[in-house]
Order: sequence, then C-alpha cells, then structure tokens
Amino acid sequence: MMQMLEKIKKPNDVKKIPEERLPKLAEEIRGFLIKSLSRTGGHLASNLGVVELTIALHRVYSLPDDKIIWDVGHQAYTHKILTGRMGEFERLRQAGGISGFPRRDESPCDSFDTGHSSTSISAGLGYVRARDLKKESYRVVSVIGDGALTGGMAFEAMNNAADLKTNFVIVLNDNEMSISRNVGGISDYLAEVRTSSAYTGFKMGVTSALEKLPGLGRGIVDTLRKTKSSIKQLVIPGMFFENMGLTYLGPVNGHNIRQLIKVLSEARRFEGAVLVHVVTEKGRGYEPAMRHPARFHGTAPFEIETGLPAKREGPTYTDIFSTVMRKMGDREPQVAAVTASMATGTGLKRFSNMFPERFFDVGIAEQHAVTFAAGLALGGLVPVVAIYSSFLQRAYDQILEDICLQNLHVVFAVDRAGLVGSDGKTHQGLFDLSYLGEMPGMTILAPKNLWELSDMMKFAVHFDGPIAVRYPRGEAVTEFKEARQPVELGKAEVLERGSRTALLAVGAMVPVAARAAEILKEQGMEVTLVNMRFVKPFDRELLRELAEDHELFVTLEENVEIGGFGQQVLAFVEREELPVTVCIAAVPDQFVGHGSVAWQREQCGLDAESVADRIRKRLAESAGRGRTE
Amino acid sequence: MMQMLEKIKKPNDVKKIPEERLPKLAEEIRGFLIKSLSRTGGHLASNLGVVELTIALHRVYSLPDDKIIWDVGHQAYTHKILTGRMGEFERLRQAGGISGFPRRDESPCDSFDTGHSSTSISAGLGYVRARDLKKESYRVVSVIGDGALTGGMAFEAMNNAADLKTNFVIVLNDNEMSISRNVGGISDYLAEVRTSSAYTGFKMGVTSALEKLPGLGRGIVDTLRKTKSSIKQLVIPGMFFENMGLTYLGPVNGHNIRQLIKVLSEARRFEGAVLVHVVTEKGRGYEPAMRHPARFHGTAPFEIETGLPAKREGPTYTDIFSTVMRKMGDREPQVAAVTASMATGTGLKRFSNMFPERFFDVGIAEQHAVTFAAGLALGGLVPVVAIYSSFLQRAYDQILEDICLQNLHVVFAVDRAGLVGSDGKTHQGLFDLSYLGEMPGMTILAPKNLWELSDMMKFAVHFDGPIAVRYPRGEAVTEFKEARQPVELGKAEVLERGSRTALLAVGAMVPVAARAAEILKEQGMEVTLVNMRFVKPFDRELLRELAEDHELFVTLEENVEIGGFGQQVLAFVEREELPVTVCIAAVPDQFVGHGSVAWQREQCGLDAESVADRIRKRLAESAGRGRTE
Repeated sequence: MMQMLEKIKKPNDVKKIPEERLPKLAEEIRGFLIKSLSRTGGHLASNLGVVELTIALHRVYSLPDDKIIWDVGHQAYTHKILTGRMGEFERLRQAGGISGFPRRDESPCDSFDTGHSSTSISAGLGYVRARDLKKESYRVVSVIGDGALTGGMAFEAMNNAADLKTNFVIVLNDNEMSISRNVGGISDYLAEVRTSSAYTGFKMGVTSALEKLPGLGRGIVDTLRKTKSSIKQLVIPGMFFENMGLTYLGPVNGHNIRQLIKVLSEARRFEGAVLVHVVTEKGRGYEPAMRHPARFHGTAPFEIETGLPAKREGPTYTDIFSTVMRKMGDREPQVAAVTASMATGTGLKRFSNMFPERFFDVGIAEQHAVTFAAGLALGGLVPVVAIYSSFLQRAYDQILEDICLQNLHVVFAVDRAGLVGSDGKTHQGLFDLSYLGEMPGMTILAPKNLWELSDMMKFAVHFDGPIAVRYPRGEAVTEFKEARQPVELGKAEVLERGSRTALLAVGAMVPVAARAAEILKEQGMEVTLVNMRFVKPFDRELLRELAEDHELFVTLEENVEIGGFGQQVLAFVEREELPVTVCIAAVPDQFVGHGSVAWQREQCGLDAESVADRIRKRLAESAGRGRTE
Repeated sequence: MMQMLEKIKKPNDVKKIPEERLPKLAEEIRGFLIKSLSRTGGHLASNLGVVELTIALHRVYSLPDDKIIWDVGHQAYTHKILTGRMGEFERLRQAGGISGFPRRDESPCDSFDTGHSSTSISAGLGYVRARDLKKESYRVVSVIGDGALTGGMAFEAMNNAADLKTNFVIVLNDNEMSISRNVGGISDYLAEVRTSSAYTGFKMGVTSALEKLPGLGRGIVDTLRKTKSSIKQLVIPGMFFENMGLTYLGPVNGHNIRQLIKVLSEARRFEGAVLVHVVTEKGRGYEPAMRHPARFHGTAPFEIETGLPAKREGPTYTDIFSTVMRKMGDREPQVAAVTASMATGTGLKRFSNMFPERFFDVGIAEQHAVTFAAGLALGGLVPVVAIYSSFLQRAYDQILEDICLQNLHVVFAVDRAGLVGSDGKTHQGLFDLSYLGEMPGMTILAPKNLWELSDMMKFAVHFDGPIAVRYPRGEAVTEFKEARQPVELGKAEVLERGSRTALLAVGAMVPVAARAAEILKEQGMEVTLVNMRFVKPFDRELLRELAEDHELFVTLEENVEIGGFGQQVLAFVEREELPVTVCIAAVPDQFVGHGSVAWQREQCGLDAESVADRIRKRLAESAGRGRTE
C-alpha cells in the first residue's frame, strides 16, 4: 500500500524514486499524514499543502549539506518523513517524541529551529553570507508562506538580500491564506499576479533573469537588456519583488512536481537572490481540511471520515473570551478588536462577523498591531489586542514605547499564556508576566476560571491605561464557581483561610494550589489559599495582613521566575521587612519542551504534589530551626 | 533679523505669512536652529532637512485638530517652533525643558510620542480608523524617512493601509540616508526613482491618481482607466508603492515650498491612502552638517564656524568598542559585525572600513539583524551585534527564540545601556538587564571602566553561547585602572574589603558605589565594594562567602528593579537562606525623563549620596533592632 514511502529510510532516498512515481509518493505521504494526525493531532492543513513542494526540494537539494529553512516550521512534516523520521510520528508532539517543528537537535537536516513567523529569510541570508565568507559551497533555501510575508521582518530581510551576488533561493509558498485569511495590499497583489498571469508568466520571469545565469552568451543578454526594462514592466508579474532587488520566477503550480523540479533547478543556478513563487492549496487532498483550513491548522485528534474532533471538550478560555467580546461589542460601540492573523485562534471570529468595521486582522504583524492599537486608543476607541503570549513577545518594544510610555488604554488579551503543551518550546507563554511586568504603568490580571476571565475582560475594557489579561490555552477551569466577587483594582481574593502558610496563586495555578492545599490538609496542615487576580499591582495590603499570622508565603505562577510574580512579592516582603519567608514556585531558568501540560508542570515542579512537598519540607526545616522573628 | 519668525507665536500663525515670504521664514528657522543647537546640542542635520516640508505641512493642515505624526521624532524642531515653542529651545533636552521629540504632554499639536523608528504609519492608520468609526473629519499625516522605511513595521502598516477608502497621507521624507547611509533594495529602488524621473514623474502620479479624487467627471476617469494599467507600469515611478495598494505622488523637491504645498493639497483630497515622495537634503543650509550628516545627527554643542565640538571629551565606551572590534577583526577572521543603521553611533565605522565584507548594516531592522546573526553563527562566524539597549528591545522575540533557544554564539554589544541623559524616556537603556536576564541561557556582563569593556568583548568573542556586554552612553570611566584581573565566567571582582555592608555594583554603578563607600568611610563605616562583572550568571560563591561576615547586601544597577540584578540576588539569598538583608538600588517602576545623567540618577536615588544615605539609615535601623540571626 505504501510502496514508495517504504523506500524512504534516510535523507536523499527520495532521489532513488523514478520521477514519474513521485505523484504516487505524494499521495502516500498525504494518506500517512491524515491517518497519523487523526490519532495524534498536529498541523494538518499546512502540511498537506506542501507535499509536492517538499518532494521537489528534496530532489533538487542534498541534505544535510544544503540548508532548507522552513518559515514558522509547522509545515515540515513531509520534510521530516523524507529525512527518515516517519517511524516517529506516533509520538509527534509528545514528551520524548519528535517536535511538530524543525529542531536542530532532532536531525542534521533541520538547519534552523523555527516556530515564530517571518524569520526564514533572515536566517537563510545569514547562512549565505557566512558560506560566502568561508568560501563554502552549500545551497540555502528559505521557504516562506504568503502569510509570513506580511510580517515586517521578512521585508527587512528581502531588502537586505537585494545586493547579493551569490545564490540564495526564497520559495514563496503562496497558499492564498495564512492561519486566517490573508489581508492587506501584498495579499491583493499576489492574488492579481496569480490570476492575471495564470502560470504563463513563468516563461517571462526566466527570460528576464537569463542575464544572471553564469556561462550564458553575453550577446543575447545585451540584446535583451535594452528592451528589458520596458518589457518587464509590462508583462513580468513579479515586478514588486523585482523592484525590491530580487529576481522573480513564477508563479508555478505547487502541486506539479515536474514543474516544481524544473523551476527549482533553474533557481538553484542563479547568482543572486531569487524568489520562486509557488502556488499551493492548503489542506489539499483532504476534503474537511480544504473546507476548514483554519480549523485544521492545528488540530486535535479527529475522525477521518467526518473531520470532527475525536472527543468533545468543555469550553476553552478562548471560547469564553469570544463570548465576552461579542457581548461587549454589542453594548459598547467604542470597543474594537485587533489581532495578528489569529482571528480563529483567539476566538475573535464571531466578533469579526458581527462588527466587521471594528475588527482589524492586520496579518502576522504583531508590531504594527500594537502601535496601530495605540492610534485607535488616541482616536477614542478601546482596542482589545488579542495575541498569544509567545507571539506578543514580538511587540515588546511597541508595548513599552507606544502604549506604556503614553499611558494609553489598550487592552491586551494574552491567550496561550503559561505552559502550552504539545507545541513546545517556541510557543510557551512563559515570559509575559516578566516582560509586561517590567513595563511601568502596565496592569496585569490572570483569571482562576472561566467566569473570572469574563469579569476581568469587562474590568479591563472599563479601565484606563495599559492593561493585560493573561489566560492559558485549552479547557477553562470551572471550579470555584461560587467565588465570584467583583473585580477591583489590585485586590486579591482569599479562597481559604488557614495558618502558617499562604499560597499566593496566579491564574491557572489557583486550582493547582487548591489541590496542594488539599494534600497538605490530609497531612494535617491547613493553609491559606489566595487567588491573586492582579499580578501588577498585586494586593500589598492583603500581604501585610497575612504576614501578621503566617510565616511562609508560597507564590505560584506559570511563568519564568526571573522578573515574575514571585520575585515581586519577595522584593516587597524584603522592602517592608515583613517577617515571612517567601518560597517561589515558578518555571526555572530553562526552556520547556513539548509534551502534555501535566508533564510540563512536573518538569517545572509546578504540579500539586511537588508544591505540597516543597511546603512540607520548608515548614519542617523552619520548625527544626525555630521561627526567626 | 528674524522678522518672519517673530510672528509665529502659536499654532497656525504660519498661515498668516504671505506665501512668497515663506522661503525667508525657512531661512530664519535654519539660522535659529543652527545658533540654538550650537549652544544646547541636539539633532541638527535631520531638522535642517525638513524646514520647508514642515512649513508646507503647517500651511495645508490645521493643528491641533489635524494629526501630524513624526516618525522617530528627532526631526520635529521646526514643528515645535511653528507651534509656539521657540522660546523654550534654550532648555531643549534639559531637565524641565522641552523634549527633543514630540511629546503629547508638551503640546496638543504633538499627536503621538515618538522616539523609535518606523511606527508613524501604524499610529496614523489607527487614528484614521478611529476617526472614520467615530465619523470625525480631522486629517492624519504620517511623516516617515526613507531610513525608517527599512524597518519592517512600516511595511506591515503600509500593507494594512492598502484597502483604506478614506484619506490618509504618508509623507516619505527621502533624504537619501537615515542615521547612517541607507542600505538595501528599497534604497536602490528609491535612488532609481529619484534619478530616472527627475521630478517629472510628479505629473503622471497625479494623473494616475485622478480617479480617486471625489467629484471628478467619471468620463475622463473611465477613459484613463482602460489604458492605465499599461501606462502606469511604464512610466509611473512609484510602482512599488502602487503594487502595495498605495497611491503614489512624486517625487517632489522637498525644498520648494510652493511645490510642496501644491502636492500636499492634492494629497489631502484623496479618498484612500496616498504616499507623497518628498526628496530632501539632510543638513541643508549648514555646510558642516551637509558634509558630515552622521556626526550632526545628534550633536553636542559646537562652534558654528567650524562645526567642531565646543569641548573635547575623553574617549567614550563607543570609542573603546570601536578599537577592540578593529583589533579583533584583524586577528580573528571569523568575527563579523552587524548593526541596524548605527554604524557611526556604535563605533563600527572603522571595522566597516577595514573589513567591509564582514560588516553588515541591515538598515533600521533590529529584528532581522538578530535572526540574520543567528544564521551567521550557524554558518560558522562569530557575529557581534551592536545595537543600543533601547532599540534592541525591538528584537526581544528574536533574541529569545532564534538565539537563546538555539543556544547560538552571538555577541550583543549593548551600547547606551542605563541612563542616557538628554534623549530622555524613549531612549533610556533601563530594561536590558531584565529583558535579557529572563531569557534562559543568556550571559550578561557589564564593565566598570574602559579597559574592562575591552577585556569583556574579547571574552565574549571567545565564549560559546548567547552573550551580551552592556555599557553606557558617553565618556568612559578611567578609574580603577589598576584593577584588571582576567575576565572569568561568573566571577566578580572585590575592589575593597570592609565589614557589615557589601556593595554589589553593576557596570556604571561601580564608580557610584565607590563614591558612596568613600562617603561612608568618612562617617566611619568601611564597606566591601564588589564589581560584579557578570550579571548573569552572577558570582554565587562570592555572595555565599560574603554572607558569612556581612549583614547587608546593597545591589546597584542602572536598570529597572523589576527583573533586574538586585531581584536575582534577593531571590538567591532567600533560596539559600543566607543571613543577610538585601537592599536594591535600581530604577523605580516609572519612566525617567530627559535631563543630565547626574540629574536622572538623583531622580532614581542612584547617586552616591542617596545610596550612602540609604545604607546609613538601614544600618542604624538594624542596630536599633539588634541583628536578627
């Protein structure tokens, strides 16, 4: 059944298959991906789109000597299969299994660790410059999607590739949409190129580029050159890229392996930076993914026949955010929503359908999203910027300089904050409490359950000044339903009163702290349990009060320790000379790999058992020493 | 002498001057700027370039109703003069005086606080969308330089402006160079536009854009439309921007006020996003600034006749960095240098002259600079990325994801770290110890004096892994010359041994700590003085040892407290239960305005007197209480 696929055991094995059998190989790979991902989940639509492109790249290039850099990286499954990792797909994205993204520590054929968008041209250009300086001869290819092209750093990099005199190939994988439907002038431009030239432009592109080919008769080139500038203005579809200084080839049908191999082989011979425009179809070969590419961008396990999720889960925090935004949009005409190609992922789809004029998907452009929101705020609206914690990192400077420094009322809905599970290192939301916390004037909240997220969003929209609500990926907590006091600036919520030890928990760590408290209770220790609600400014008054009859504060957060909540509590306790010991439970100073969130918590000592253990030991120690004050 | 200028007392006064007298006004403004800045220092070259453009903008628009957003903002001096702030130039950039950048709290005519590059189109577009939603009618103009256009977020914003149906004007102030000479494909493209069309393209641009003008006969437009696509491909110089979806007008002579007013008036009437390409000359009207625009980008007080600095200063840290890079470049062929349009500012000019093939100025493109360096490192080079602390913020995500996560050996030379003086809030380097410190795997050093910077750079280049050396703006410290032990990973340097109190100082705070130690000595207290050298990983062994015979650790750093060095020491002391009190001297959780560095230190309690005071009080308190352990 998988005759072709069985022959692929290691890099370059794909070269042994006769060219006419490659479409069959592509078909087998699609079958394998659909079946395998229906069991494990993963990025399906993007991977189905690049099966032929990946095969063609592996025919034209030699790995690991040549470097293929996959922008974002979630489309590298076929690449992993063709480099001998098919057997490991059973444990895709699981602890100890292979990553869903290229990882240099996984294979020498993975030449750059990706995960965030729009970096591949920069990385590729770095490789190229180093290669040339060291007089080496390997080839470098950066594969970037049209969505990733809306990210500014891709332009920064293309701008720098312009004066290159040696070979560097940029493959534009134009699937007519990024994670969400693509936006903006570039997208319109690409659409025009695709339709007006209907793949015939390919020939002209090659002609115009002839002169850069080595060893070609100068006579022809000179003749061509004279008429070139006017001709290429008229008919070459890639004028935009040519104006930037790149040579343009395309557009090419991204599902025709023969044509792909031909164009990529041409591109490989250029002396200079060349952009190959490949048109692909996301989700190709699997009906449900073609119909719902956004849903099959990253999918949980699903039933192959229907495309429906294998198991139903309760509402996620994203769902709750989606609902509260819809409701607020209804009641408050000044509320606008901004996202960076994450309309579906952040739950803003419904808002966008109901209030299209107040919804702004700016493309994969976090920097612009934030400063654009600053403009919206100054213009009198209340922008809610919904971006995942890990991607919001890209707007650090803009949040600090354009929002905080001007003290503007912009609401950040920071989804995927904390441990994210199977996406792994590049997608962990483990830095936001630090990077937002160190910005003067920023207010930060984290909800313990779904009702609190709703209340906090309402609070944030009626606040004044920079404010962020951070909440985790996945199913929302439904415990503590009865604890629903109004949200008040800087006020924590005491869920249980005990003695000696106070657990000060942030957001998703509240239920963990509650379980730790139960464990301790079984062992005869009744501790105080606090849902902090506000990470900045946190409830100083409560801490002063608790310091009067507690000896140990245990802070809990899904964030790195450095610059996080715990360190702020500790600094406060030290400054005020409160007679308590502070024990910080946070993510240690290292990256956390892919696996389940439960597993990741254990790795970080953030599971209830570890926390309870630590407290027990600490109390035993201090009992042994006697209290200090 | 200043007949025209005397008439400008408040916004819109410039409209009362007859149009034919405006060149005279421009001349007077130039004279005023040169004279005033020769005394106070400031950004001269960029401001001399936009005198006519600013006058024209103030003629066409009504402030404060209309919004002019100055990208980067260092070219807004004429704007300040025309809005009634001429009298305040004596205290430009001084504590309590006006800022060198637009500041909303300074004038209602300043509509966006800028300082960092490439943000103006995003902010402007935000204003536009809010205006339209609120059915208001003010006009919005973003003025952006060709240098700032190399920053990716400008593209992200243009991409989003493409589908705009209402008026938004982007003025491209093309002065053929940004802070350093401009680079890349876009720059080449603009040069081509400027020369090939020689200002004649203006008419065509207007024609092509006719159809977007309201109230124009549809007949003409339809006729035009049919031939438009072919015509405009042939002759319109702004095809690149037209392809992005913007309407292009220009190029226009930026020193011809009459022509500027005409084009800006046309642009003002468009329904859609229009880019007006204005060609200006940096430093215009002042010979020394025209010859050395980089030196007159931001200048100290100077002699008008010669253009030479009014007083000679000792070598800066930048000079030292410049020298060590030149030397290392000589000896070590794998060392490369990367900067983001700061070749002069960072001192890399000499390296670039000697090793042009290993020097990469990527434009105002910090994100690309960092990921490009990742590629260089993977290709076998040792890239040194020299970017100011405040601008490096823009590459937070890339440092974390592309450098630290892959544990690549990239050296960051973080200039302008700490308090920067007169540039003020937007340029303070007060966050890098936090934002770099929270990244797993990052090593951070800070030198106490010029020799140590040199030693640390050498150490960093021979290190393996992500490493940053942060050093301040301005004259380098030449004290402590005798203390020059080899730099060893994670090892601090004890400069003086005392008792009870240990001052743990980072970089520029070492001399401050030394002065505080002297003050205390005069009062009979001999304290221990430590130059930490390594902020991460810091010298834990030494701290353990000091804890044995000290009761107070005082940490000193020019960085915000949150996430900074002091909090890490405190967390360590708490974790190890060391019997010492930690007192953190750092920048409080607020922005620090412009003024002298000495004044800024006082504001932050980081001057020697304040530090000494704090220690004395703390010791007195603890003596009053008795020691606790």
